[in-house]
Amino acid sequence: MKILVINGPNLNLLGQREKSNYGELNLEKIGEIIKSEYSDDEFTFIQSNHEGEIIDQIQNASANFDALIINPAGYSHTSVAIRDALEVAKLPKIEVHLSNISARDDFRHRSITAPMTDGYLSGFKEKGYLAAVYLLKR
Amino acid sequence: MKILVINGPNLNLLGQREKSNYGELNLEKIGEIIKSEYSDDEFTFIQSNHEGEIIDQIQNASANFDALIINPAGYSHTSVAIRDALEVAKLPKIEVHLSNISARDDFRHRSITAPMTDGYLSGFKEKGYLAAVYLLKR
Amino acid sequence: MKILVINGPNLNLLGQREKSNYGELNLEKIGEIIKSEYSDDEFTFIQSNHEGEIIDQIQNASANFDALIINPAGYSHTSVAIRDALEVAKLPKIEVHLSNISARDDFRHRSITAPMTDGYLSGFKEKGYLAAVYLLKR
Amino acid sequence: MKILVINGPNLNLLGQREKSNYGELNLEKIGEIIKSEYSDDEFTFIQSNHEGEIIDQIQNASANFDALIINPAGYSHTSVAIRDALEVAKLPKIEVHLSNISARDDFRHRSITAPMTDGYLSGFKEKGYLAAVYLLKR
Amino acid sequence: MKILVINGPNLNLLGQREKSNYGELNLEKIGEIIKSEYSDDEFTFIQSNHEGEIIDQIQNASANFDALIINPAGYSHTSVAIRDALEVAKLPKIEVHLSNISARDDFRHRSITAPMTDGYLSGFKEKGYLAAVYLLKR
Amino acid sequence: MKILVINGPNLNLLGQREKSNYGELNLEKIGEIIKSEYSDDEFTFIQSNHEGEIIDQIQNASANFDALIINPAGYSHTSVAIRDALEVAKLPKIEVHLSNISARDDFRHRSITAPMTDGYLSGFKEKGYLAAVYLLKR
Amino acid sequence: MKILVINGPNLNLLGQREKSNYGELNLEKIGEIIKSEYSDDEFTFIQSNHEGEIIDQIQNASANFDALIINPAGYSHTSVAIRDALEVAKLPKIEVHLSNISARDDFRHRSITAPMTDGYLSGFKEKGYLAAVYLLKR
Amino acid sequence: MKILVINGPNLNLLGQREKSNYGELNLEKIGEIIKSEYSDDEFTFIQSNHEGEIIDQIQNASANFDALIINPAGYSHTSVAIRDALEVAKLPKIEVHLSNISARDDFRHRSITAPMTDGYLSGFKEKGYLAAVYLLKR
Amino acid sequence: MKILVINGPNLNLLGQREKSNYGELNLEKIGEIIKSEYSDDEFTFIQSNHEGEIIDQIQNASANFDALIINPAGYSHTSVAIRDALEVAKLPKIEVHLSNISARDDFRHRSITAPMTDGYLSGFKEKGYLAAVYLLKR
Amino acid sequence: MKILVINGPNLNLLGQREKSNYGELNLEKIGEIIKSEYSDDEFTFIQSNHEGEIIDQIQNASANFDALIINPAGYSHTSVAIRDALEVAKLPKIEVHLSNISARDDFRHRSITAPMTDGYLSGFKEKGYLAAVYLLKR
Amino acid sequence: MKILVINGPNLNLLGQREKSNYGELNLEKIGEIIKSEYSDDEFTFIQSNHEGEIIDQIQNASANFDALIINPAGYSHTSVAIRDALEVAKLPKIEVHLSNISARDDFRHRSITAPMTDGYLSGFKEKGYLAAVYLLKR
Amino acid sequence: MKILVINGPNLNLLGQREKSNYGELNLEKIGEIIKSEYSDDEFTFIQSNHEGEIIDQIQNASANFDALIINPAGYSHTSVAIRDALEVAKLPKIEVHLSNISARDDFRHRSITAPMTDGYLSGFKEKGYLAAVYLLKR
Repeated sequence: MKILVINGPNLNLLGQREKSNYGELNLEKIGEIIKSEYSDDEFTFIQSNHEGEIIDQIQNASANFDALIINPAGYSHTSVAIRDALEVAKLPKIEVHLSNISARDDFRHRSITAPMTDGYLSGFKEKGYLAAVYLLKR
Repeated sequence: MKILVINGPNLNLLGQREKSNYGELNLEKIGEIIKSEYSDDEFTFIQSNHEGEIIDQIQNASANFDALIINPAGYSHTSVAIRDALEVAKLPKIEVHLSNISARDDFRHRSITAPMTDGYLSGFKEKGYLAAVYLLKR
Repeated sequence: MKILVINGPNLNLLGQREKSNYGELNLEKIGEIIKSEYSDDEFTFIQSNHEGEIIDQIQNASANFDALIINPAGYSHTSVAIRDALEVAKLPKIEVHLSNISARDDFRHRSITAPMTDGYLSGFKEKGYLAAVYLLKR
Repeated sequence: MKILVINGPNLNLLGQREKSNYGELNLEKIGEIIKSEYSDDEFTFIQSNHEGEIIDQIQNASANFDALIINPAGYSHTSVAIRDALEVAKLPKIEVHLSNISARDDFRHRSITAPMTDGYLSGFKEKGYLAAVYLLKR
Repeated sequence: MKILVINGPNLNLLGQREKSNYGELNLEKIGEIIKSEYSDDEFTFIQSNHEGEIIDQIQNASANFDALIINPAGYSHTSVAIRDALEVAKLPKIEVHLSNISARDDFRHRSITAPMTDGYLSGFKEKGYLAAVYLLKR
Repeated sequence: MKILVINGPNLNLLGQREKSNYGELNLEKIGEIIKSEYSDDEFTFIQSNHEGEIIDQIQNASANFDALIINPAGYSHTSVAIRDALEVAKLPKIEVHLSNISARDDFRHRSITAPMTDGYLSGFKEKGYLAAVYLLKR
Repeated sequence: MKILVINGPNLNLLGQREKSNYGELNLEKIGEIIKSEYSDDEFTFIQSNHEGEIIDQIQNASANFDALIINPAGYSHTSVAIRDALEVAKLPKIEVHLSNISARDDFRHRSITAPMTDGYLSGFKEKGYLAAVYLLKR
Repeated sequence: MKILVINGPNLNLLGQREKSNYGELNLEKIGEIIKSEYSDDEFTFIQSNHEGEIIDQIQNASANFDALIINPAGYSHTSVAIRDALEVAKLPKIEVHLSNISARDDFRHRSITAPMTDGYLSGFKEKGYLAAVYLLKR
Repeated sequence: MKILVINGPNLNLLGQREKSNYGELNLEKIGEIIKSEYSDDEFTFIQSNHEGEIIDQIQNASANFDALIINPAGYSHTSVAIRDALEVAKLPKIEVHLSNISARDDFRHRSITAPMTDGYLSGFKEKGYLAAVYLLKR
Repeated sequence: MKILVINGPNLNLLGQREKSNYGELNLEKIGEIIKSEYSDDEFTFIQSNHEGEIIDQIQNASANFDALIINPAGYSHTSVAIRDALEVAKLPKIEVHLSNISARDDFRHRSITAPMTDGYLSGFKEKGYLAAVYLLKR
Repeated sequence: MKILVINGPNLNLLGQREKSNYGELNLEKIGEIIKSEYSDDEFTFIQSNHEGEIIDQIQNASANFDALIINPAGYSHTSVAIRDALEVAKLPKIEVHLSNISARDDFRHRSITAPMTDGYLSGFKEKGYLAAVYLLKR
Repeated sequence: MKILVINGPNLNLLGQREKSNYGELNLEKIGEIIKSEYSDDEFTFIQSNHEGEIIDQIQNASANFDALIINPAGYSHTSVAIRDALEVAKLPKIEVHLSNISARDDFRHRSITAPMTDGYLSGFKEKGYLAAVYLLKR
């Protein structure tokens, strides 16, 4: 299974940001854990702070991957454009948030991108990615 | 690991309700799948349509179980009392929704119980329970 | 025709509550009037102050009755769980309110259970039950 | 008993409009059914698309009729002026909606005219008119 | 001075409506009082329940009158179209409300027509018309 | 092609109203321009300040015309009844606003009639009518 | 007739403030006009920028005056305390606004003090005071 | 004096829950303090997590007790049904909250049950019960 | 114990204002009752209609008194400045409302000053002050 | 006439997205139709998923083009920055939406970019571009 | 340059209030720093807890000073009357907040007085005053 | 001191945009003024219309600069992602707005990025940057 993992703005800072919300690991380390746990699958990790870049990647996903895991971070709450891109993409899609967004600021409670995925996980820190792969494989 | 799984109102009707949202399996069948997948752990399944009964069960959980999986169903959106019960309960807690609540009626978008759990999953149908156990075991 | 009539919280106090809103008759007396007017039909009257009990009764209705008349009283405005139970129940369903809820407190204007019934009546006091039966029989 | 039945805007199109909401009968046919069911009473049927005309008719009702059945249709949700006319009219008044307005668009949930009637029915299609007469006669 | 006095919906019922809000006089009697108090001026009184008719009259006012007194009644709170007509009319314009609209239902607090007049009076019953003439003459 | 053009309240005043919003031409002149530009088509122009009259005309449109252009003016923002009439009318329908309603008062931002047309244009003054015909002919 | 005229904050600046809203006269000049027009009555003019001072004056009004004219200016929109003082004062009370408050900023549309007066005038500049006296004397 | 003290959901956990809000004592200990302070009166203490059970108890109160002290806890903010039960109960009623609800989450600021009691206290921890008895005895 | 009792705007009118809300006693009489009931303590009673005066008094309280009882009346709902003063004052503070504010106008439901006190009582008329002293002494 | 046509995020996917909303043609095909219909004019077509790129293009438009047609797609509803760029651009500007945005999700009803254009069209699919050119040429 | 510095309610308590928001210095000390830094200018420092007093001072400012620095503190969020006074005052005006109001309670996010000044600074503690003088001198 | 100055979307157009809001200078000229006034410090000026580019720059700031001045322009009101980037950046941060955002459109009143800076200035045009440097140096 070929899986694209898109990480949105500021996730390149993982490991430096408030650890109670985001956990202790950086993105590279998380990638290693996923790959060692699911060594039969092939993963492509992308991180970008640019809304348009993320849309480009989503658009390319259906042709080149079997599934998409996306953590749109701050764009989850504001980007109608990413939502539209997800709507068109025809592959299994799971949204992951490291922190429990329902327990943070009001403006983070609602994800406008999540309705265009098959489902989302929120609050499990890096383990959310593992569970997303677990879910894709069933 | 001893895990309590609380299912809220109308979940005894699983298998009869809109299948596009809730999946095809009934609660008993879901229980069997979980038990066969995680045969080393011990599960207690409870379903109740009564808000007060659910609160009683949450209160008893810390003393008798290692972890709690709860699907509060319709009470997620209205019950301050269940929220308060969860806040006090000192054990790992995960909230599961079979359907993707962010993609349904407006009044289902917000769970007021979820902020008192460690995280929640929404939209994976019965596989959400499996992933919850998976997450608890890490 | 076998008809289940579910009465929600505080309706056991009919006859004591503000008469301009609720009329002068108590629940027992209302039952007698219905039965004498429609003597060919069979009625089961239930009253409960417990949200969970009302959900149990709705779930049992399809198997044992031809139609359901429900007055969810105060739960009309707060119970997503009763709404969900009504959605699954596959029999004719009519919601009745004794008082004209559109003319009372703001938080009584909207019934969140009514959209899951075939229609509702509001403001006709005990005669609302009679009209509901009248409607079911056509 | 002399009963005035006022039908608001677009109800002259009954039978052509979405049948799942409005039923299959046109207004003339509904009139015939009411008259044959209640042959001892006298009915006057009026339909108008004009807000002012409906107000004129309500104002004349008290002097010439024993009771009023009104379906203000689209004006239910916007007309403070019809509400005011109903408030002054001193005769029994029932509001009827063919469709279940609580289950349709948000802007149809609230009737601002209904608080000035004795009660309202919503969702029973043409049978709503029959039940209204049934209620007036008790 | 030639003054047009437009009275909106239900004002032909003055004298029958709640007297604490609207006073004891009917429209004809109010007209007589104004004429006897201001016998040098010429008044034209119009009452209509039709929104369109009121717009027609406002449009004709500038050509034929020196000033306009308008009581849009229920239409004050809903009619963007009357507001637009008032905006175009180039003559002195005063809005009068018999009752104190700031002390009644929420939906009567805001007049959307008043911003297009020179000013408005509210709560002085029939004396509001007299004061409007008094203001126009200065 | 036979096209009905309905103009709502106050549009008979075109040419007198704020020219920055509405342009310099009156309705008659606009009619001439349309007819000379599209001389092969047949146009019927109607203007009314009466909501009910506009509904009557919409109802008659399907039987007698090939297409409908409507500028509901102030009624766009308040009339559920015109919306309902448009919903039933089975012919191509385009809504035109002379001014750019998204750039004016808040209460003009949302048209509740537009969702029942095939599309709408806003802000092109008299040229909006020309473009509407242009669109209907393709 | 002894009349107290209370002027709220910033009204001592009349004549300097935006003249299109407030007129050209200062408070002293307005006082002279009122006194010359109604020379048989006795007027006491008060201006204060202090909310508490205005409340004191309202409380003293019933014992020492026959009527009260009040222009609460900026406090109209924020002062629950002035509203409470007006509610207790047992004498005829009229609220006056120089500018047409319905045509200005949103937060000026609603007066929370006006419901506790007999009525209010808005938009007639200094003539509003004259009309208030005119109304009190009838 | 016979006094019924009803304690709502999760109050059986007192002593374990956040002590800065709820104080250090458990419910049993609070009962002892009240009884020793007011040894001439008779107290019945009830705690339930069930909304329906609380309604049952309120309904029985008038017949068997001289006064009611109620702490509806989480149900204060959501239960129209408990509000209705309190409205009918004809005995002195006081609502008590251990924590200062005006200083906590937004959804705890408003009690919808309190308007149906004679008054309420909030923020005095267990001493709120003592003060409630103190108030009932005067 | 030296206790400062601050009474806000219009409370000097107690005994004249709506008795169903405020009780029959005036402020002087309430003072006497408190002093006779708690004759060992020393009370200073202050009443002011001036927001600034109340802030001055709160600021002086910590240095000169052991505790503060405050009834901010109308200012409870509007004064951020009194709230800020209370936040800084380091002595026991209780807010008292004579009427049950949760049962009155919407704009009285929320006290923005109460979160800065230790707790508040509402609805017990003059007895609220007695209970406040009772609570301070424990 | 040199015309710049800017297409916002996801419009490169036209032809794949829900056809009932967006039509059957892709962007390239739409370009061909426009060019063949208006062969005397010169068109530059741009599509970008990047908000910043779109702003750059708008900024460059005035110097190099005679007119601008823009379909900001998802950014219409969220981008204050594109709105600001349009405000500064001094050339004729028309906004086009393929779908009828007033008939879709709530968050698509309001365009915050449209007020900074001369007008907008919504709902005519690819024909909206043709009509926009038609409008620019008059 | 003669500069008036007005400090609103509770600022006389600086040095005692939460230091993370307000800094460590009291008002007198801040005055000394400003005077020593800008020894060529003349400063008048005023502090008042009284809204009316602050309005009086603003009104007097234009005649006697070259510029105004105001920190309205709690009144920033509630006082329409101070806003009106600032609007009339014809001298350079800067609003200063010690704390970063955008990062505190919701009701502190919006200043209704700031739009009537030339600009405002928020969050720089006592250094905000220095920067305000710095800005006035350019 | 090394200071990074980030300018958001459309600020490259300074000097062309409405001068009453933004002042007469372009960005280059502003840079010169700052450098000549603070010739001992080192400034890096960046302008970008790309949200992602701005995030990249903020992320790099802590390692390479002593302080950050940011004018996020239109992104202030919509970008959760820039807010998140600012939260992580560990250096002194000041937000500057050229125009007085509290006096402009409603959707510009609230900055969601400002709470993550040390403070902000608004309304001083280019002098706001000078004052920001002035503040950083203390």
